Amino acid sequence: MSVIQSTRTALVIAPHPDDEVLGCGGTISRLVASGATVDVAIVTRGMPPAYTQEHVDQVHGEAKAAHTRLGVRNTHFLDFPAAQLDQVPQAELNQAVRELMLDVQPDTIFVPFVGDIHVDHKLVFGAAMVASRPAGGFRPDRILAYETLSETNWSAPYLSEPFVPNVFVNIEDHIDSKIEAFEAFASQCRPFPNERSTQALRALASVRGACVHVPAAEAFVLVRDIAG
Amino acid sequence: MSVIQSTRTALVIAPHPDDEVLGCGGTISRLVASGATVDVAIVTRGMPPAYTQEHVDQVHGEAKAAHTRLGVRNTHFLDFPAAQLDQVPQAELNQAVRELMLDVQPDTIFVPFVGDIHVDHKLVFGAAMVASRPAGGFRPDRILAYETLSETNWSAPYLSEPFVPNVFVNIEDHIDSKIEAFEAFASQCRPFPNERSTQALRALASVRGACVHVPAAEAFVLVRDIAG
Amino acid sequence: MSVIQSTRTALVIAPHPDDEVLGCGGTISRLVASGATVDVAIVTRGMPPAYTQEHVDQVHGEAKAAHTRLGVRNTHFLDFPAAQLDQVPQAELNQAVRELMLDVQPDTIFVPFVGDIHVDHKLVFGAAMVASRPAGGFRPDRILAYETLSETNWSAPYLSEPFVPNVFVNIEDHIDSKIEAFEAFASQCRPFPNERSTQALRALASVRGACVHVPAAEAFVLVRDIAG
Amino acid sequence: MSVIQSTRTALVIAPHPDDEVLGCGGTISRLVASGATVDVAIVTRGMPPAYTQEHVDQVHGEAKAAHTRLGVRNTHFLDFPAAQLDQVPQAELNQAVRELMLDVQPDTIFVPFVGDIHVDHKLVFGAAMVASRPAGGFRPDRILAYETLSETNWSAPYLSEPFVPNVFVNIEDHIDSKIEAFEAFASQCRPFPNERSTQALRALASVRGACVHVPAAEAFVLVRDIAG
Amino acid sequence: MSVIQSTRTALVIAPHPDDEVLGCGGTISRLVASGATVDVAIVTRGMPPAYTQEHVDQVHGEAKAAHTRLGVRNTHFLDFPAAQLDQVPQAELNQAVRELMLDVQPDTIFVPFVGDIHVDHKLVFGAAMVASRPAGGFRPDRILAYETLSETNWSAPYLSEPFVPNVFVNIEDHIDSKIEAFEAFASQCRPFPNERSTQALRALASVRGACVHVPAAEAFVLVRDIAG
Amino acid sequence: MSVIQSTRTALVIAPHPDDEVLGCGGTISRLVASGATVDVAIVTRGMPPAYTQEHVDQVHGEAKAAHTRLGVRNTHFLDFPAAQLDQVPQAELNQAVRELMLDVQPDTIFVPFVGDIHVDHKLVFGAAMVASRPAGGFRPDRILAYETLSETNWSAPYLSEPFVPNVFVNIEDHIDSKIEAFEAFASQCRPFPNERSTQALRALASVRGACVHVPAAEAFVLVRDIAG
Repeated sequence: MSVIQSTRTALVIAPHPDDEVLGCGGTISRLVASGATVDVAIVTRGMPPAYTQEHVDQVHGEAKAAHTRLGVRNTHFLDFPAAQLDQVPQAELNQAVRELMLDVQPDTIFVPFVGDIHVDHKLVFGAAMVASRPAGGFRPDRILAYETLSETNWSAPYLSEPFVPNVFVNIEDHIDSKIEAFEAFASQCRPFPNERSTQALRALASVRGACVHVPAAEAFVLVRDIAG
Repeated sequence: MSVIQSTRTALVIAPHPDDEVLGCGGTISRLVASGATVDVAIVTRGMPPAYTQEHVDQVHGEAKAAHTRLGVRNTHFLDFPAAQLDQVPQAELNQAVRELMLDVQPDTIFVPFVGDIHVDHKLVFGAAMVASRPAGGFRPDRILAYETLSETNWSAPYLSEPFVPNVFVNIEDHIDSKIEAFEAFASQCRPFPNERSTQALRALASVRGACVHVPAAEAFVLVRDIAG
Repeated sequence: MSVIQSTRTALVIAPHPDDEVLGCGGTISRLVASGATVDVAIVTRGMPPAYTQEHVDQVHGEAKAAHTRLGVRNTHFLDFPAAQLDQVPQAELNQAVRELMLDVQPDTIFVPFVGDIHVDHKLVFGAAMVASRPAGGFRPDRILAYETLSETNWSAPYLSEPFVPNVFVNIEDHIDSKIEAFEAFASQCRPFPNERSTQALRALASVRGACVHVPAAEAFVLVRDIAG
Repeated sequence: MSVIQSTRTALVIAPHPDDEVLGCGGTISRLVASGATVDVAIVTRGMPPAYTQEHVDQVHGEAKAAHTRLGVRNTHFLDFPAAQLDQVPQAELNQAVRELMLDVQPDTIFVPFVGDIHVDHKLVFGAAMVASRPAGGFRPDRILAYETLSETNWSAPYLSEPFVPNVFVNIEDHIDSKIEAFEAFASQCRPFPNERSTQALRALASVRGACVHVPAAEAFVLVRDIAG
Repeated sequence: MSVIQSTRTALVIAPHPDDEVLGCGGTISRLVASGATVDVAIVTRGMPPAYTQEHVDQVHGEAKAAHTRLGVRNTHFLDFPAAQLDQVPQAELNQAVRELMLDVQPDTIFVPFVGDIHVDHKLVFGAAMVASRPAGGFRPDRILAYETLSETNWSAPYLSEPFVPNVFVNIEDHIDSKIEAFEAFASQCRPFPNERSTQALRALASVRGACVHVPAAEAFVLVRDIAG
Repeated sequence: MSVIQSTRTALVIAPHPDDEVLGCGGTISRLVASGATVDVAIVTRGMPPAYTQEHVDQVHGEAKAAHTRLGVRNTHFLDFPAAQLDQVPQAELNQAVRELMLDVQPDTIFVPFVGDIHVDHKLVFGAAMVASRPAGGFRPDRILAYETLSETNWSAPYLSEPFVPNVFVNIEDHIDSKIEAFEAFASQCRPFPNERSTQALRALASVRGACVHVPAAEAFVLVRDIAG
């Protein structure tokens, strides 16, 4: 039970609101239930003209509701422009993530997967790697990358980094919380067979679970674990 | 719809009985429905003392029932010793697969995945590769590798070939046939959350489907396709 | 013969004029001969001061002549700045490719290879991946990546994605059309042993062909094929 | 500190005597110091005529001394023929490892790396993978692969699985125990610059440590971790 | 010109007669012309009943003629059974290759590629790796893997090690010698478009050459180079 | 001894001052001792406000002192903005590196590793690849990528290109020069166990050396070697 056992303070870094729920909702809920503290950082927000202020406000509210459902302590909105992270100097993004990390001092961070099709995901992964190097007397002990239905599944097979999970977290008692948290994102849910649907999320939890003989699981790729 | 459209005669090569259903049951059913001919080859069979004759007979009967359900034309039992393929000279295995291929003359073959944990799967994959080279005036046009719950999911992440599918077949109208064919293997079914369960099979079909926005799919890795 | 058989409408996306001929000239010709419709999109054009207007006009004319030779229906010039795609917001490039795709509604798209040394090739590959996700009621059925002599052969071995083709198209009856189409690009042809030469193109077709026992072939990497 | 924190019972599987010390000596010592139980399995032993009985007895004694130094509870000698594992039916090797695992019931296992040049290492890795699947009501929670100086460093770059560690264990307080345990293998020590030397072992611990800013470390590749 | 410049004594290891010509014929000729000594080892020979003695004798004679044409000093026939290397204990094969290497003391060895479809090629590659470790006061300085038309081109794309060359040797002045040496293997030549044809060999030399702007080249993957 | 033997003029390309010493200091010293000419290019320099002019001047002086110690002929400062290379058009960076290469006409270039965590390293690698293509009558014969402690060791295991060296240069007689050159960078040295320390550098040289049985080595990945 290492991830659950070893985590006192976790930081989940999400490029866009709801990535954190799609990838880690059950694990967040389980960590909180086991006594850990979990913060979430939402790196971008929609900017006009691509997104209306109304839409942005709605998603903001949905995120707060979802995080409350999961027991998240603090949600940090970094407010970089959504779908435009390639237009932000990387040093600036790295710096923002580093400052947040020094602020939260997590022992465990959860990051989006570098192979995801969305360039925002790739860049947030990269920034989290840079920000996780020891400096200023701090580094996280471990880094796990999560999968995001609608992003991880569209990468190019054998031509981008494959998501092949090596860490499995039983979320049998937390799959319902995850689903409810996702449903809080009314603006983001789609009907099955769209992969952004509760049915697809449940099926994925069943598959990830059955692959290690538990009823529901979330799966991750370990990037690094330091037993200091 | 290339795989379905392009296939007139398919040969599904299974290391052990039921691999062909776990990996291709829905696609077999759809191919048959679309007018193609499908043969199955079962490469090994249980040998005493590891397996009783009674068990072997039972599985043999289950395979015939399952294949009837799916509309398979012929089932070829190659009768190599199960879980002992590493004790068989590879030239002998290659030869047997080659002879079968010359006999069936398939345009499309389905093979187990090389990254599967079971050495029998790896060796059958290799034999099928060797047997697919043009010789004697024949070669198949295309080769697809299928996934096998209970074998593909136990390979070592990033240390063995990852199964990252690039071919998806909608089996919306054939998932029930697949499940029934699997249920014909009463000796092989396990209760969920074991991955050899109907619930896990349905969940996997939902996930593979949702990833390309269809209700149920089987997923494959294309090894080679020759538009001769 | 799946690619040929399954394609009714193809879209070939080329970062710069002549990439489409180097990578797919023979396949375009064969598709047209078999009754399919083929459109080409040229993503960039030379901009002053790097390129003179005269040069740009010449290449434009060469492209039209080459495409006429191959039987291309429409050539779409997207007019992004050549060798400067890294200066274009990715969302903008993605959007342009998506709109084109909705316009042409291809079942098959041909894209440059992500491992090519030129950053324009990498970015066009990425944009095509994003634009190929189902949305607005449309997605292509299959995506193939082609190789481009002078770009694919200069990538860093084992340090960038390798081009290892898994789809081969016999262009025995179309290699001459391909060569003539390439010769239409007088400004781009170089004498052998430069790889942008007719002799190198013919040698490559012979090698790709001999590797599957046909006299001439073009080779591709399948990115995805959905039998919906 | 997850590996240290999460382990109550560890099993270190070594193809040949001293692999367990080269790869995990410091971690074994630290685990024991932190209250965990550690068993070691030596899979092979030298057989005449390749090895004399005298040599085999000597190495056997060295192993016992080394393990005593590290605090190993039990050493299990499986007695397969050294450098001849490719002559043993894999089912037999798998079965022996599985029985041992059911006997010891470890939550954490340490295995040799699949990319090591020695075929015995590859086969023991494979057997451990097979034996770690849930069955008979048991499976280990996590699997880590260790590196072995003189085996891992001779694999073929980019042509075999690379050892790229993602788990680091600080052995600052245990590097001396590791070195002493290795020195107990008098028959296996070589003078620097041979890599089977105490100087090379210390240098490797410094490098693995400095890479995560601790004075000495052992490094591993995580194969799987299940938070059940 | 490092490979040519740095080699005084080369050993080319071929699983079967003619592999050494297909992969290194031009380079052997160039090395000899530049004053180096080149030996060839043929690891296997055909055994009845798979091969007749007449056939074996013929190929033996063809090899001698081809090697004479290229200027090979000695040809070493190791006489392991062709297409049955998987039936030979690996320790035995390793030992034979090691003894040969101690005998010849090459600074450069050329080995078949590990990703080739033929298991004999994979095993000879592995044996050469083991035999190249420093011992008995000797090790080669560098190891290069060559490609073999009819073996390298049939491996499974993205599912076996890809041959992506990083060393190119200009054989402009030696391509004719290579072709003549191959023609000496009358029993092994096939008509184009079979890849075992002089036309395919010439086309491959043109492609490998044009990729680095020389008229003809052989291409290799560097396994290791030690500037001792 | 191919790299040493084959090099008459080398160009070491460093993203930031001291990368060239961390990665190639011993090899530079050995090349100079063997009669070769070595130039260094420092691609970036610190810019206010991130760096003070005083700091930049100090590092500039340190670089000159270090290069004098190693026997570097010329140091070329390209003066792109440090940690902001992602804000520079790639065509501009490519052009600057290409012009330098035409000026120096090196037969061998040393480049940072593409998998390094710092985006400046990735971009300089890419620019060097582009600039190494034959044009204007020139190309380098070989390209080697070096490792940089503090950059190479923080990349994401299995999710970015792994540094698996295939070229080893014995620097037994030059390790002291390397250390002294690094000590000239007083502003960049850190106390062990920081990896930017003389102790870590010595340990790495011992490990890279012991892995091929020499007392100290630098290790590289060969990108390309053309024996023209």
